[in-house]
Amino acid sequence: MDTFVLHEEPISGNCYKIRLTAALLGIPLERRLYSILKGETRTAEFLHTVSSFGRVPVLQVGDSTFLPESNAACFYLADAASASCSSSPSSSPQVVGPLIPRDPLRRAEMLRWMFFEQNQHEVNIATLRFWVHVIGERDLDGARRVQIQGKFAAGEQALDCMEDHLAKSEHGWFVGDSITLADICLFAYTHLAGDAGFDLARWPAILKWCEQVRQVQGYIPMN
Amino acid sequence: MDTFVLHEEPISGNCYKIRLTAALLGIPLERRLYSILKGETRTAEFLHTVSSFGRVPVLQVGDSTFLPESNAACFYLADAASASCSSSPSSSPQVVGPLIPRDPLRRAEMLRWMFFEQNQHEVNIATLRFWVHVIGERDLDGARRVQIQGKFAAGEQALDCMEDHLAKSEHGWFVGDSITLADICLFAYTHLAGDAGFDLARWPAILKWCEQVRQVQGYIPMN
Repeated sequence: MDTFVLHEEPISGNCYKIRLTAALLGIPLERRLYSILKGETRTAEFLHTVSSFGRVPVLQVGDSTFLPESNAACFYLADAASASCSSSPSSSPQVVGPLIPRDPLRRAEMLRWMFFEQNQHEVNIATLRFWVHVIGERDLDGARRVQIQGKFAAGEQALDCMEDHLAKSEHGWFVGDSITLADICLFAYTHLAGDAGFDLARWPAILKWCEQVRQVQGYIPMN
Repeated sequence: MDTFVLHEEPISGNCYKIRLTAALLGIPLERRLYSILKGETRTAEFLHTVSSFGRVPVLQVGDSTFLPESNAACFYLADAASASCSSSPSSSPQVVGPLIPRDPLRRAEMLRWMFFEQNQHEVNIATLRFWVHVIGERDLDGARRVQIQGKFAAGEQALDCMEDHLAKSEHGWFVGDSITLADICLFAYTHLAGDAGFDLARWPAILKWCEQVRQVQGYIPMN
């Protein structure tokens, strides 16, 4: 398997997703740390060598390949782990790793929750957390402050969707009968939602699921 | 292959992605149309039978499976098409359809752009288009109106990212040497960006890529 370097900011849930995926798969990951608040992902060197987009996480694969977008990086690690475990090394690696369902419909359902996470959860809950917990509400500019209420309501809706689904889920996972990337990607900012002002006690199925994630063999906490 | 019904709103670029994917793959798709503005995705019947989340698109697979999230639906169609074309029908379908790269790293790069689309493109460009083109700026409430400037700037940044990548791309596609789901998913709201107030003439590599998408065999326009 290739070597992996994670270019990351330790306070970022998006970065934690990738570390948690690697931990559950037993994949070693070298960490390079950057401070977003100090602008360390906007330096000329970072923009030139890691990502011209000035964002983390970026998963470096081998020496010269750099993969942005947390959920794509999680997918690649699980895919790569599957390939290295394959019993038929000559064939093209299949997307059937331990954290990715083998069945195409289940795999699509996993991706459905990963896209939901990026489109309806992260943009509200993670952004709110960054604003009120990392920057601090007092230091927010007006353009951000006026969005707090709307993002809070949209974040509640996202948590309601998750609660509704988990409450009906036979095994307490988002897809099928074991943990998948959908759970990992949603766990990252859900278990931090308190930082953004959400009281998770309102969503009991989510609380139970968070505890179930923490019990998985290989689990590592964020810090 | 299963039969597919697309529950959709014809003005939605997210719904168009799925129709374009099906068209390029030659997969028949039955359409059920709903008007978002008339609240037809919030009726008791829709919430009960199609999706409790009250959103379209939803891809219905067979009689009883309903898959929300446009990019997950595109992925499933390409995956299903691959399975039905497989030369080894007894094996589990591989994610190596015509629109999904066979190589795991290329596949992750495709997903990278699909997550980018949902996290940094759709939430700005599609939302702005809905606000200023479908609802109309005069009829927007204050909470939305104050976000227009920020969403416009973030939309420009997303287009800059795409332009930067496409200008360096050897074949003019987002990943590899042929069209993938990354191109389809990004095309949907990019080719409609004019509706949201973006002048695509500022991004020549994007304009050229849009034309390249339109030349692909099987292409269908949105309306």
